[in-house]
Amino acid sequence: VIIERLAIVGIGLIGGSLARALKRAVACREIAGWDLDPQAVQAATRLGVIDRGAADLQSAVAGAELIVVAVPLGAIAEVFAALADRIPGGAVVTDVGSVKGTVIDAARQRLGAAFRRFVPGHPVAGTERSGVAASFAELFDGHRVILTPVAETSGDALARVSAMWEAAGATVERLEAALHDELLAATSHLPHLLAYALVDCLAAERHVPDIFRFAAGGFRDFTRIASSSPAMWRDVLLANPDAVLEVLGRFSQRLEALAGAIRAADGRLLMERLAHAKTVRDEFCRRFPALDRPSDPGR
Amino acid sequence: VIIERLAIVGIGLIGGSLARALKRAVACREIAGWDLDPQAVQAATRLGVIDRGAADLQSAVAGAELIVVAVPLGAIAEVFAALADRIPGGAVVTDVGSVKGTVIDAARQRLGAAFRRFVPGHPVAGTERSGVAASFAELFDGHRVILTPVAETSGDALARVSAMWEAAGATVERLEAALHDELLAATSHLPHLLAYALVDCLAAERHVPDIFRFAAGGFRDFTRIASSSPAMWRDVLLANPDAVLEVLGRFSQRLEALAGAIRAADGRLLMERLAHAKTVRDEFCRRFPALDRPSDPGR
Repeated sequence: VIIERLAIVGIGLIGGSLARALKRAVACREIAGWDLDPQAVQAATRLGVIDRGAADLQSAVAGAELIVVAVPLGAIAEVFAALADRIPGGAVVTDVGSVKGTVIDAARQRLGAAFRRFVPGHPVAGTERSGVAASFAELFDGHRVILTPVAETSGDALARVSAMWEAAGATVERLEAALHDELLAATSHLPHLLAYALVDCLAAERHVPDIFRFAAGGFRDFTRIASSSPAMWRDVLLANPDAVLEVLGRFSQRLEALAGAIRAADGRLLMERLAHAKTVRDEFCRRFPALDRPSDPGR
Repeated sequence: VIIERLAIVGIGLIGGSLARALKRAVACREIAGWDLDPQAVQAATRLGVIDRGAADLQSAVAGAELIVVAVPLGAIAEVFAALADRIPGGAVVTDVGSVKGTVIDAARQRLGAAFRRFVPGHPVAGTERSGVAASFAELFDGHRVILTPVAETSGDALARVSAMWEAAGATVERLEAALHDELLAATSHLPHLLAYALVDCLAAERHVPDIFRFAAGGFRDFTRIASSSPAMWRDVLLANPDAVLEVLGRFSQRLEALAGAIRAADGRLLMERLAHAKTVRDEFCRRFPALDRPSDPGR
């Protein structure tokens, strides 16, 4: 046992999976949980994901030494505001948001003196499903959790949050928040935007039934991430607009260059760019073997 | 046995897998093979994929009742020209190109009288690997093969090619060539273009090692198709420029609309488009369950 009392605020896929992983590791004496949606609290209690379903935020965090805020990004500032006066002395607070800059700003504004015991965090794991019913203990196994502490962040708080994620099966890394947001914009936020845009576009084409009927296997993989939670991705995109629009601009230039090569029937240029991309992607897969479960579990 | 002598011209992933699938079904008395690359012929013979490795095109197709042209799209017109005078009387010719309009044009120009016994075909199956060493008998199982006969195409020739693909495990469908090229531009050629453009773009970013180090699982799925053969995709994109550029234009408009919503922090619009895409994709997966093997076999 490394944590006496843990409070999880927001019990969806991430909060629920964290609770399950920590139970698997026997890392907590008690896990209390609260969610804006009372049904999520009931489900989590019924499934044995948490030990104690709290009736309100106050009772969830009372006596907690570690508070994990696992609500959607769009609700996080509000939750920080509600938390501010209720954080037990010495308790550590962390979050799981996929964007860190805006979360840090919100925490700095809302958490007051507790800000130095706030550790911004992002578990780079998930599925396209959401909700506590989809949670599972293995979600973080072998995945990275990126912590983005700032100058004020207490080293002790950082160590406690690191220990929690390691107990949950993850590998902990540290990054500057701005770099985190830039990297994730490129490798996660932009791909999601493209997948959503592609499906949105195809759904407006003529011959829609045929389009999907004849879609090849690559299409399924390529668009899997467009089955993710729209509310979550709206929040992510709105929380990281500058980095997303910046990398989107660079992407659009590359895409336009490829389109130009097609228009000009420039096979040499096309071959050069495609071959380069393949080399890079193959090298990526060689250096970083898949951590993931097979994709698209029945969806 | 439904085919006495089959000739496969071009023994890569598709030609090799077709030979293996037909052997599994005991559908041919003899499968002869030829390839521009003598090493491919040697490998196919050594692996037992074909019964007879031919030294040249002429001897490969001598006495064949069915000739499958499975060379890259960029070489197909040339192969048709070389074949024209060598097609045994009454023999049926088919191809496996991912684009049909330009292949039909080439066949019409080059095959002469044999054009009416030419059946344009496209097996919608593949992996991101290529070459006969990557071929396997199950490649077409449960996958669609789209045949796009024209007005002149002989019904008997069409029936023979259909029977061959059914023996290989595929489901045969018929489409107009123009509709085929439009559907595939939307569901296959455009996604490949986007995946290549994304990897090409990210490889030019600052912090490249970090970008790939912190890439999440969705990125791997999303970019898997960028590990496909660049030469093949160059050929596909150059063979279907009009349909590809047209759907790319519509895609870019959708993407710009999403970017505009991010820029304007318009959560309502963003939510509406993302939710619509998710609904469409989930419906697609419900109606057309996955046919594919788990993706990304170790690459």
